[in-house]
Amino acid sequence: MRFYEDLSVGDTRHSDDYQITKSEIVEFGEKYDPQPFHTDEQAAAGSTFGGLVASGWQTAAICMRLHVESSEDTATQVGLGIDDLRWHRPLRPGNSLRLRTEILNKRTSESDSSRGIVTTGHEGLNQDDDLVISYEATAMVQRWDGGE
Amino acid sequence: MRFYEDLSVGDTRHSDDYQITKSEIVEFGEKYDPQPFHTDEQAAAGSTFGGLVASGWQTAAICMRLHVESSEDTATQVGLGIDDLRWHRPLRPGNSLRLRTEILNKRTSESDSSRGIVTTGHEGLNQDDDLVISYEATAMVQRWDGGE
Repeated sequence: MRFYEDLSVGDTRHSDDYQITKSEIVEFGEKYDPQPFHTDEQAAAGSTFGGLVASGWQTAAICMRLHVESSEDTATQVGLGIDDLRWHRPLRPGNSLRLRTEILNKRTSESDSSRGIVTTGHEGLNQDDDLVISYEATAMVQRWDGGE
Repeated sequence: MRFYEDLSVGDTRHSDDYQITKSEIVEFGEKYDPQPFHTDEQAAAGSTFGGLVASGWQTAAICMRLHVESSEDTATQVGLGIDDLRWHRPLRPGNSLRLRTEILNKRTSESDSSRGIVTTGHEGLNQDDDLVISYEATAMVQRWDGGE
């Protein structure tokens, strides 16, 4: 298990690929982002996107899944916030998403000596290596020595 | 229908309430954020949260739904990005979330004269009016005059 002390600025990880289906896009859209370009194939064809695209929040949620899967060896991480999230291009049915993360900053918590605070850059890339989404995530990570 | 020209800095809206269930939390967690405090009631009880909590990305996705519902009279909005997203406290089974939005900034697009760019502050509050999540969302909004 990796703790705060085991993480270094510059550490990079690559996830597996996640291929999104049309039905997943529509299901998420109907539940959380009911705009026609996420839920209705015909209406989407006439929209600014020219076809169905995944909700930007679904793209982010898939990145979360890929991050959890590629950091299973890291102690409990509790998300504090997200900065500079940008949606660069849409994710369409059949497209793949993979995640590249890099640790950008780490510091000990001032309010809780058992935790460290780590900021990680996230880039979600499609099957053509084009950038789909990017953001910086800040999370609390358990310290191995509990701050003793 | 409201277009870019109809939106003013300071415009405020309040959404309806959305009550979240345990099964929705677990379903989203299993699909997009498979950490024990989102997916396993027993493991969650022993976690830092002391019980099941919604994924922060699910909290954000519910805010998106509430925003779509409370801005149905506004012309197509295409999300560009999110800044300063903070998760202030967890959303637990049976808790409610409602959204307060306020337009913070508007400007015309330099690259596309048919669009305006609008930044809106979002605050998600629970049933006790405690802040659960906050962020600023920037989106393109259609101009009524198409920039002609």
